[in-house]
Amino acid sequence: MKKFLNDVEHMLTESLTGFATAHSDLVEVQFDPTFVTRKQKAQNKVAIISGGGSGHEPLHAGYVGAGMLDAACPGQVFTSPTPDQMLAAAEAVHAGQGVLFIVKNYAGDVMNFEMAAEMLPFEHATVYTSDDCAVINSTYTTGRRGVAGTVIVEKCVGSLAETGADLAACKTLGEKINQRTSSIGVALTSCTVPAAGRPTFEITDTELEMGVGIHGEPGRRRETMREADAIVADMVAAIVHDFKAKQLPAQGEILLLVNGLGATPLMELYLIYNTAARLLQEKGFSVARSLVGNYVTAIDMAGASITACLLDNDIRRHWDSPVHTPALRWDM
Amino acid sequence: MKKFLNDVEHMLTESLTGFATAHSDLVEVQFDPTFVTRKQKAQNKVAIISGGGSGHEPLHAGYVGAGMLDAACPGQVFTSPTPDQMLAAAEAVHAGQGVLFIVKNYAGDVMNFEMAAEMLPFEHATVYTSDDCAVINSTYTTGRRGVAGTVIVEKCVGSLAETGADLAACKTLGEKINQRTSSIGVALTSCTVPAAGRPTFEITDTELEMGVGIHGEPGRRRETMREADAIVADMVAAIVHDFKAKQLPAQGEILLLVNGLGATPLMELYLIYNTAARLLQEKGFSVARSLVGNYVTAIDMAGASITACLLDNDIRRHWDSPVHTPALRWDM
Repeated sequence: MKKFLNDVEHMLTESLTGFATAHSDLVEVQFDPTFVTRKQKAQNKVAIISGGGSGHEPLHAGYVGAGMLDAACPGQVFTSPTPDQMLAAAEAVHAGQGVLFIVKNYAGDVMNFEMAAEMLPFEHATVYTSDDCAVINSTYTTGRRGVAGTVIVEKCVGSLAETGADLAACKTLGEKINQRTSSIGVALTSCTVPAAGRPTFEITDTELEMGVGIHGEPGRRRETMREADAIVADMVAAIVHDFKAKQLPAQGEILLLVNGLGATPLMELYLIYNTAARLLQEKGFSVARSLVGNYVTAIDMAGASITACLLDNDIRRHWDSPVHTPALRWDM
Repeated sequence: MKKFLNDVEHMLTESLTGFATAHSDLVEVQFDPTFVTRKQKAQNKVAIISGGGSGHEPLHAGYVGAGMLDAACPGQVFTSPTPDQMLAAAEAVHAGQGVLFIVKNYAGDVMNFEMAAEMLPFEHATVYTSDDCAVINSTYTTGRRGVAGTVIVEKCVGSLAETGADLAACKTLGEKINQRTSSIGVALTSCTVPAAGRPTFEITDTELEMGVGIHGEPGRRRETMREADAIVADMVAAIVHDFKAKQLPAQGEILLLVNGLGATPLMELYLIYNTAARLLQEKGFSVARSLVGNYVTAIDMAGASITACLLDNDIRRHWDSPVHTPALRWDM
């Protein structure tokens, strides 16, 4: 294993310190317990807080800022944050209108956010994301995994919260987006957890893992490596099948997110996007919004995921609204 | 070699088509000859055009847009674009005030941009970037290589051009920034050129290549892998030494760019940034602006580069000005 690190024990602290320094105009980090907040705390709105294991950067700390999260609680690599982190973050950013947790559906995250919620002295609610259509139940999951679609939930719910919407409305929007979003990932290589020092799984030069999780969890099956168009066709088919299973409309405008898992060149991500957009159009969906890049990673995995979110006026408006975070930034 | 591709021959076309579709609000692509322009062409300003081999994404096409480039000419992977591309791009974006080429100093790029310049029916000038302080002369280079500092030149010269500044002023600013900018890269793994199908160089699990080029060219020396702080200390020392060799002030405000070469997790880049910022502060430089991420890549290389640009009021103002491109986007 070759990584840029000093002591595995201090990797998260050193990296978060660098992150907070590089983006000191936007965010602040606190340690013991560890959480990231906006530099300019918001007033009189629902506080939106997310978190989870590190190793998925820029998720979640990269999405703290105006129009998106109020705080993020990073755990160690692929390890849930602990309830004291969520409690301290909530204490720091609560602005009189309650707290909404956005939590990817993994057993450790669910348990720790639930424990935090029980102790929380504020009105609160939780949105669980479960957009990964690859498998039902997985290594760390009862039910479907939350993956790259989480970014769409965080962006749009963050936008709604800025308008002064109440806790119930924020939760409703988050659950609607999760329901209208499907993702599937594919790995060409494993990731390597720094503390483990070796690849999470073995895979040969002629194989791919279809439906891989963002922690290197097994997907649907080990397949033979083949040309990109054939891989993308299977991924798009899985998403379209999932839309059908969810009884979503068989046509409409979508947001298409092609997400790199850490070690995949942008040139390849755009090639994947090109095929995915064409196939989705052929199936009746119109790609109205796009995002291509590394947004929810699996450390250093070579691989990519495709996410489609079926838009409506509401979701589109909140996706388009201004956002000003380290990792997503645009104006109207 | 496992990559997301269909036919190597069509990889660039498919990827650029995806890029142009994903960012159809900002850019347009033309083929035969191949170039990328802004969707909304600028009026009455110097046209800023860059280009070079592909494989360094988001450079250069990702920087086409308001406040930065007017056009980019992508060659095949690690291969210079041809003069007909630059001529067609210039024809498409020339707005009556002349054309400035921004060219990374590699023999093929220099030759092809020079040939295009000779044939250009417009007033023109060229800025060559050569920020890489690792080596003098290299595999594809007479003189120093142009690497990640090119992004700073493109951003700031693009900003100046938007103000209506003339060709000579744009060239002067570009050359000033290049003079005040030093970079050095390090590789933990090789890149793999798709058409070659195998790693460009061999490197073991206990080695790193200090001073590597963005095409996998040899650096200063093969070294033993060690902790991040020791690697970063050597990189920072090389930059500070280069500042001295260029007779730049030994203190002042800098822009610090920590750039991933393709396969390095953001978590590690922020860790590198943390150490580099601390060491540069200790040496008398104040980190006033920061950029951390994959901005000038070497396909799928695990590695990173550090770039420092000594700011002045002029450079800082043009760095801060609004930019609206696929890969860099901010408002004042």
